[in-house]
Amino acid sequence: MAQGITKQSEDFSGWYTDIVTAAKLADYSPVRGCMVIRPYGYALWEHVQRALDGMFKETGHENVYFPLFIPQGFLQKEAEHVEGFAPECAVVTHGGGEPLEEPLVVRPTSETIIWATYRNWIQSYRDLPLLYNQWANVVRWELRTRLFLRTTEFLWQEGHTAHATEQEAEEEALRMLEVYRRFAEDYMAIPVITGVKTESEKFAGALRTYCIEAMMGDKKALQAGTSHNLGQNFAKAFDVTFLDEKGDRKFVWATSWGVSTRLIGAIVMAHGDDQGLRLPPRLAPIQAVVVPIYRSGPEQEAVTQKAREVAARLRAGVRVKLDDREQHKPGWKFNEWEQAGVPLRVEIGPKDVEKGQVVLVRRDNREKAFVPLEGLERAVQDLLEEAQGGLLERARAFREANTFPVDRYEEMARRADDGFMKAHWCGAAACEARAKEETKATIRCIPFDREREAGRCIVCGQASEGRVIFAKAY
Amino acid sequence: MAQGITKQSEDFSGWYTDIVTAAKLADYSPVRGCMVIRPYGYALWEHVQRALDGMFKETGHENVYFPLFIPQGFLQKEAEHVEGFAPECAVVTHGGGEPLEEPLVVRPTSETIIWATYRNWIQSYRDLPLLYNQWANVVRWELRTRLFLRTTEFLWQEGHTAHATEQEAEEEALRMLEVYRRFAEDYMAIPVITGVKTESEKFAGALRTYCIEAMMGDKKALQAGTSHNLGQNFAKAFDVTFLDEKGDRKFVWATSWGVSTRLIGAIVMAHGDDQGLRLPPRLAPIQAVVVPIYRSGPEQEAVTQKAREVAARLRAGVRVKLDDREQHKPGWKFNEWEQAGVPLRVEIGPKDVEKGQVVLVRRDNREKAFVPLEGLERAVQDLLEEAQGGLLERARAFREANTFPVDRYEEMARRADDGFMKAHWCGAAACEARAKEETKATIRCIPFDREREAGRCIVCGQASEGRVIFAKAY
Repeated sequence: MAQGITKQSEDFSGWYTDIVTAAKLADYSPVRGCMVIRPYGYALWEHVQRALDGMFKETGHENVYFPLFIPQGFLQKEAEHVEGFAPECAVVTHGGGEPLEEPLVVRPTSETIIWATYRNWIQSYRDLPLLYNQWANVVRWELRTRLFLRTTEFLWQEGHTAHATEQEAEEEALRMLEVYRRFAEDYMAIPVITGVKTESEKFAGALRTYCIEAMMGDKKALQAGTSHNLGQNFAKAFDVTFLDEKGDRKFVWATSWGVSTRLIGAIVMAHGDDQGLRLPPRLAPIQAVVVPIYRSGPEQEAVTQKAREVAARLRAGVRVKLDDREQHKPGWKFNEWEQAGVPLRVEIGPKDVEKGQVVLVRRDNREKAFVPLEGLERAVQDLLEEAQGGLLERARAFREANTFPVDRYEEMARRADDGFMKAHWCGAAACEARAKEETKATIRCIPFDREREAGRCIVCGQASEGRVIFAKAY
Repeated sequence: MAQGITKQSEDFSGWYTDIVTAAKLADYSPVRGCMVIRPYGYALWEHVQRALDGMFKETGHENVYFPLFIPQGFLQKEAEHVEGFAPECAVVTHGGGEPLEEPLVVRPTSETIIWATYRNWIQSYRDLPLLYNQWANVVRWELRTRLFLRTTEFLWQEGHTAHATEQEAEEEALRMLEVYRRFAEDYMAIPVITGVKTESEKFAGALRTYCIEAMMGDKKALQAGTSHNLGQNFAKAFDVTFLDEKGDRKFVWATSWGVSTRLIGAIVMAHGDDQGLRLPPRLAPIQAVVVPIYRSGPEQEAVTQKAREVAARLRAGVRVKLDDREQHKPGWKFNEWEQAGVPLRVEIGPKDVEKGQVVLVRRDNREKAFVPLEGLERAVQDLLEEAQGGLLERARAFREANTFPVDRYEEMARRADDGFMKAHWCGAAACEARAKEETKATIRCIPFDREREAGRCIVCGQASEGRVIFAKAY
């Protein structure tokens, strides 16, 4: 079963790479650090896109498209931004057979090119807010890459909004974080902690970075999405001002927010098990697979015919696949679709045809149910909803079981692989850096919902007013 | 009316650029040759994508994503391909602060990277066909650029399929050309001529290139989509073979096909007039705009309220916008939405409220109808369908009126601006080249439906067996 796949329990990292390639989500490419997203992986990404895009539009955003290339000088206009991104850039120095006068950077993120353009689009308060998003590829030169989690080129969406006031920008940044939280929990079935990044972990150029942090199956953290209040940093760098209602000239306030194909990696690592993927039904490219079971001979046609009927009936409300390949045995097919994480298997054998029923097997908990053909559509819908909820609850329970307070530094070093550590921190970058250096755990975020609690910094012992989340992270 | 916009009748090219920017479809960017696609233009592209993507999936294709970067050596493996594309490439020479060992080309098209990967995915006839497509950005270094029509970076889709036999590849190439033809006529409302390109106009690396050619409002041709039978050229260049049913090793057959954001330019130029855009209803981001008409005072609330109701009712089946801005007069709004090409205007004034009616005004032919509120949804749907058909018929009549036979070379030189010229051609590249050089007209295609007709090549007088289409082209 799942032959040749490293066991998750033995080597999580080996398992991850094996399952991503075996389930044909993605493949390595001949280009260093870049991946090929295969049809099954891309279909999953399309469902992610569709759901998120709908949520962006519901919150008033429109899509745009800005150039791939950014003049190198643009990147240098915001001091923190250039420091953060310049070392990771791919640089185009030649075009059309000629050396370029000014090299072009392949966008690592688009704040600079966008704000250079917003300058032309914003004159008065009437032009605000601009609520724009783009779906695009970006490039960050990474030394160590892993399929979906860290690749030189990746696909993402980046929202870039412009506002008249600080408060509006802050509300927008938090609104989009909440969109990400809802998407993670309602669609990916991954519970997340919302909070704010520390100064040293924030986006290069932001005032504040908000994030959603998820726990993977190996108890490590994964930053699943970020939303930045950029303050007036980019407006000042690109001289973007507007006349307010009183006729005063002011700098514009900005946010940006993004999630990427990294989310596919999160889905794999949050839910997968030794048998393979477990995809949340709302995003699964195939929600139910129908497998006919028969011995060669007269029963074959009757069973296959019924399987076809069932698949056709379900197709109205469910993304269904009929697996009627003759060259494979049912057991082989079961394994393949389990590995692919299809949420529900619909088995039909000769006895089921006789009895007017099918067997439904859930991928998430392997529960089996005999269900009459009458009312099958509803039963399938219900089980898919239950599976969606089941994955979320299981992931939540797992995270709770592996989240714990830590009050002594030596314990933190010892338990850094055990999950989310809630520890006091004084707020000093030096303490954060020391913990990172010595324990490999970083501050994932200062959670919004943390309790006020007087304590002592786990590193230096200075006063602290609450706990933050420390963990090893992807 | 459309103030500051060059008149189409006076300067088509100036009109095009003015209207693309005034209607906020796109804007120039600070990066040479690259454009910014604004929300209205991008929404139009999203509708193009949605319709095409559905047609691709209906014909059995799946989406994938291949890397942006291509090792420079890959491009050199297919002799014609490198000759065609190398001079247009943007080249990345540095990454992560270091010079690269082998420069990377930003994809101008993806045959090479894809076939280098297909090599790993294809072993046996059971692995075929591969029917894949990707939506992506590509870069071709262009010296003279125009918004949407020719930009250094553009968005497109590129299908790349692999087949066991020559016949299957040929059928696929023609099937996808037919998809493009249907899309052009049924969605863009643009009639197209289908045919095959001459040797000198075909895709670099193809056996044969099929195309759809459209006539723009200035009577010039625009190549709106191409579908290539690539033969075994890329399979041989990248050593992609398979074992057939008899166990013999064979090279794989290939096709590729693509359309791009250039289609937005085609929509603008095929339908637009002095008042602005005229968008085909099936692709229009806004299909109907509701404009309340009132004098300030007591009637304002009643009219605006009714306009809101009407917009809400229509929203169920139509992409509708309510324009209740108080700072603009109705006439100003009419002009703005006409310029934006919204297919239908719904006017509501105090008398209309009294009478329980609205006024519907079509953008395509300016016809006005008084329509009772009862059954309004149906009337709007019908008018949108009529407008869709009306645009197609008008474009078809325009093309027919400007397509004519030409039998003398001097006439071709004289009438090259007058439309599609049907002329005899002997098949020699030299004659084609001479005509291009001297008249600026190129052979757009050898139409599938041309009649067999003995004649003499318009350039050299040698025997010809049918007419081809000569025209100036974008």
